Amino acid sequence: MNIGIVGLGLIGASFGKTLKKVTENKVFGYDINPDVLLKAGLVGAIDDELCEANLPDVDVLVISVYPRAFKEVAKAYLPKMKNGSVLMDFCGIKRGIEEDMKELSVEYPDISFVGAHPMAGREFSGIDRSLSTLFDRATCVVVPVKADIFTLEKVRDLFLTVGFSEAVFSTAYRHDEIIAFTSQLCHIVSNAFIKSPMASSHFGFSAGSYRDLTRVARLNPTMWTELMMDNRDLLKNELDGLIGRLTEYSKALEDGDEQRLYDLLKEGSDLKISIDKGKVR
Amino acid sequence: MNIGIVGLGLIGASFGKTLKKVTENKVFGYDINPDVLLKAGLVGAIDDELCEANLPDVDVLVISVYPRAFKEVAKAYLPKMKNGSVLMDFCGIKRGIEEDMKELSVEYPDISFVGAHPMAGREFSGIDRSLSTLFDRATCVVVPVKADIFTLEKVRDLFLTVGFSEAVFSTAYRHDEIIAFTSQLCHIVSNAFIKSPMASSHFGFSAGSYRDLTRVARLNPTMWTELMMDNRDLLKNELDGLIGRLTEYSKALEDGDEQRLYDLLKEGSDLKISIDKGKVR
Repeated sequence: MNIGIVGLGLIGASFGKTLKKVTENKVFGYDINPDVLLKAGLVGAIDDELCEANLPDVDVLVISVYPRAFKEVAKAYLPKMKNGSVLMDFCGIKRGIEEDMKELSVEYPDISFVGAHPMAGREFSGIDRSLSTLFDRATCVVVPVKADIFTLEKVRDLFLTVGFSEAVFSTAYRHDEIIAFTSQLCHIVSNAFIKSPMASSHFGFSAGSYRDLTRVARLNPTMWTELMMDNRDLLKNELDGLIGRLTEYSKALEDGDEQRLYDLLKEGSDLKISIDKGKVR
Repeated sequence: MNIGIVGLGLIGASFGKTLKKVTENKVFGYDINPDVLLKAGLVGAIDDELCEANLPDVDVLVISVYPRAFKEVAKAYLPKMKNGSVLMDFCGIKRGIEEDMKELSVEYPDISFVGAHPMAGREFSGIDRSLSTLFDRATCVVVPVKADIFTLEKVRDLFLTVGFSEAVFSTAYRHDEIIAFTSQLCHIVSNAFIKSPMASSHFGFSAGSYRDLTRVARLNPTMWTELMMDNRDLLKNELDGLIGRLTEYSKALEDGDEQRLYDLLKEGSDLKISIDKGKVR
């Protein structure tokens, strides 16, 4: 197959590197930043620049840009895409993308539209941090927008081939609802956590729990502002839920209520153990 | 030297295993649970049981029990300890221990008293989870209560010998203040985080940030209730600070205030980068 990747940041470039390492697919890539495009060739994230000449040969076009840029970018590429090809995105939120794709699919009925969100990332961004191992054993959430079962099988196989452990099919809403918790809330908590006046004194007084809690305090604020704002109904719900729960611990501390604090801690610990063990879906 | 360890849980047993692996010291241990004591011998965490016969030969006695048990345990061992020996504890909070030690030191003027807190742990507890590598490159906070400089050097050397990267000397208050943030707050946040209704749906929709945020949701609620309650003034301060900061993000989401959300995220990210780079103390 010929695979096109638009946007060679951490995720796009990692996808290209992996495709080139473990498949025979030809990888065409493009980035709005010419230095990034040049680098993509040098580090082996693409075979060649994605351009007007080879776009009609592309079987799967992955758009890996910020969510709000998706539609315009898709519009620029769709007119030259061949019938039967697949347009996919890699954004971290899906409701808006699904809407965009639905609109576009009216005009391009012979193209398949599939949303995807690789469940992998780093606290760093950009091609310099991309890794051909980023997707190893990660899952990929797939939101079918307009695609038949054979296309979805092809998409799933592509993800499994590059190292994902599973393609998890989901609606856009369900994706955004769960991701508000598993990803977005983590970033807000970590980002707010590091702002304690004690943070700069942690050296020598910290270990794994501090390291883990603050890892994703570092983030790309431009991208995350878009991701969070465009998911703000669900994210605010999660955030307020957490604030409410934290307030219970604060109350127990204020009251010196040991039994209550014990109960709160035990409930959380038991839940963590049962979730890890039971793999409740 | 002869080293005694009372309390062969995760930390005590890991200390014993490491001492036996990398030093020539003789390790005597005791645990209130006879099964744990037996196991300590079997897994090589101790050379022999700590008992009335060998207690007078012990040079450094480490009491590695829950904070509120410290004083009574110390009282049971002190009468048989030799002049010039060191009594040390491994508790996660230090103000109460310092008070206990100060009181005890009046009656035992020829014993040195040193508080210590190895900055290492796991989300698991007990001897079965102990590791001879637990302290590798960790720091150990040392709170001198009654000890001369030569004794403190001996203590520091002991920690360096078993793999700690540094012995960080601190007052009890400073320790408790920083630890409220670097350790206790992490555990509360993680424990409260996992209680989201979305948590059991995370499979397939989560990656590193979820994994990191929820790791220490699992904890020993009995021990942590003691640690947190006995540090509740400082901990509540940290917790309320975090709740206040999280509320700012919630407000920005509610208002749909993108610039504000961006500013909040950027501030946290910049701070994390500068703390990691600058190693500000």
